[in-house]
Amino acid sequence: MKLSEFGISVLEDILHARPPKLRVPSRSTSNIIYDENNRYYTLGEKFGVRSAANVRQVKKFAQTLCAADFCNGLISSGKFATLREMYYTAEGWETGAFSDQSESDVIVEDLEAAFGLKREDLGLMPEEDGASVYGKLVVDEGGVRIDATKAGRAGYTIPPTIDDVAFLRCGAKRVLAVETMGMYHRLVQEEAWKKFDALIVGLKGQAARATRRFLKRVNEELDLPVHLFTDGDPFGFHIAMVIISGSAKLAYINHELAVPDAQFIGVTASDISNYDLPTDKLREFDIARLKQLQKDPRYSSEFWQSEIKEMLKLGKKAEQQAFSKYGLEYVVNEYLPAKLEA
Amino acid sequence: MKLSEFGISVLEDILHARPPKLRVPSRSTSNIIYDENNRYYTLGEKFGVRSAANVRQVKKFAQTLCAADFCNGLISSGKFATLREMYYTAEGWETGAFSDQSESDVIVEDLEAAFGLKREDLGLMPEEDGASVYGKLVVDEGGVRIDATKAGRAGYTIPPTIDDVAFLRCGAKRVLAVETMGMYHRLVQEEAWKKFDALIVGLKGQAARATRRFLKRVNEELDLPVHLFTDGDPFGFHIAMVIISGSAKLAYINHELAVPDAQFIGVTASDISNYDLPTDKLREFDIARLKQLQKDPRYSSEFWQSEIKEMLKLGKKAEQQAFSKYGLEYVVNEYLPAKLEA
Repeated sequence: MKLSEFGISVLEDILHARPPKLRVPSRSTSNIIYDENNRYYTLGEKFGVRSAANVRQVKKFAQTLCAADFCNGLISSGKFATLREMYYTAEGWETGAFSDQSESDVIVEDLEAAFGLKREDLGLMPEEDGASVYGKLVVDEGGVRIDATKAGRAGYTIPPTIDDVAFLRCGAKRVLAVETMGMYHRLVQEEAWKKFDALIVGLKGQAARATRRFLKRVNEELDLPVHLFTDGDPFGFHIAMVIISGSAKLAYINHELAVPDAQFIGVTASDISNYDLPTDKLREFDIARLKQLQKDPRYSSEFWQSEIKEMLKLGKKAEQQAFSKYGLEYVVNEYLPAKLEA
Repeated sequence: MKLSEFGISVLEDILHARPPKLRVPSRSTSNIIYDENNRYYTLGEKFGVRSAANVRQVKKFAQTLCAADFCNGLISSGKFATLREMYYTAEGWETGAFSDQSESDVIVEDLEAAFGLKREDLGLMPEEDGASVYGKLVVDEGGVRIDATKAGRAGYTIPPTIDDVAFLRCGAKRVLAVETMGMYHRLVQEEAWKKFDALIVGLKGQAARATRRFLKRVNEELDLPVHLFTDGDPFGFHIAMVIISGSAKLAYINHELAVPDAQFIGVTASDISNYDLPTDKLREFDIARLKQLQKDPRYSSEFWQSEIKEMLKLGKKAEQQAFSKYGLEYVVNEYLPAKLEA
């Protein structure tokens, strides 16, 4: 739809002997703004114009047209391609090939930002699948019905094309997303999905785009509160925060990905003391990272400021699996009930 | 079973006032042997004895007993734990905790090697799930029936506990395992699983233990030939070779993991020339790695020796997605049929 409009505007420009162009919101740091209202990073008002009349831009403009045409082909055939595949496909374009994938990736970002669409909506899929999901959720993928309690112990895998998935039925009341697959399998084994009426989501570290989109959709469409259980270290904090408030890098698309109401229930500095958890000493890069987070607008709340300060004072971090000090079931029988109640 | 025998032998030793002990095959480099008959790395005849009579070994021996007891508990309760969870659980053992997870991991390797069992058989599971599978395979996981054409586009995920999975029905004639998830999704989309009567397996880079075990089981139990389609670079070659001949590091357990009859159909130096593929220059570490492979006994065949030489001469490598130069369908319509026929 937006691609066709773009095509038509280019044609009209040519018919009227005007140089065709594309307005692209700027993604430079100065135009990335933390939106206090929406509680995520977004783009400001600045934009640039790619024009065929500019000698320095004409090649890039032509490549943008080819990329848009490629995406149009994907959409009309119902296919998906990876960014890598598009990069190689460009070997056959009349504009000449890209010298490096980063060049073709930038063109895709331009299209995303110009149209306010995710690249997945343009038929381009991430290389990697999303998280694993276990619990009372039945979905439909192109006519195939999948029950996330009957897809095996490893669960239902969120596909790169998550926007094509329809939620048919949901018997869960909340989402429990956990950082490691070790914890995911613990929660599945201990039947935490029954105990807490929860969808268990195994993030596999930093959440993939498809995972973030899935979490946003279940939060908005199914009204499920999302709880994020990560390690107690700056990397764990940030895995949760990128889900909550999005990343600066993807500011142009956070309105499709951020889950501002998601709630952090990961290991805090206070937990380390209260539960007397096995710990590791903070490394130098942990300390540097915590100090960065202190100044990050996404961490400006009282809760985060005090927890970060506390962790720096303590000089220690702890992993989510550390609760097994008290037995494998402890995390399900003690820690999570206490955190969910709080 | 083997754990009980071990327990009984320890008890008998104590009742007869003999110091209890455990014979552990040596895993040092000098005892890792490439077995020409079986075509994988295995352990030689050397072994060590952990004895409670040796002051320097008594703590480790006691920890081994505790670990064996922990595993026994897992097996009798039908549970699984991660290595990380066992490491933290040890905080509560009377032997004292481990100072580092590498210490507890070594104890698990001792048990694996001493009993000739995989740690999965002891109730210890890897952190990460295995590969994704799409195609005509129906399995049973603890009473739940899963059809690998109906688990969603992302497919059926091989669980860490793959040995508990029963193969109920298989309508496929071969396995097509591919290095990247980009290629996996390409093959699923182009319905390569129908066209080639194949199970499509997305390896996600270096294959996880569960994936290697799955490939060995479908090869042996279902008589499916296994074809490995990787990038044309030393890392791609080695992803295939570790599936075929196992790694030296896991020599003590390769008889459960290696698939010596699996066949490499990845991108070769000859393919780069014949298909005129987009390439990247070999980096210094690629060249160094290729030279290592030349001397590796697993690469002693004429095929590998000549392909490695050719790639060094060419000075270039190519990825499996490079075929999209000729359109997204080319790899399914042209490359794979030619390779599978050869």
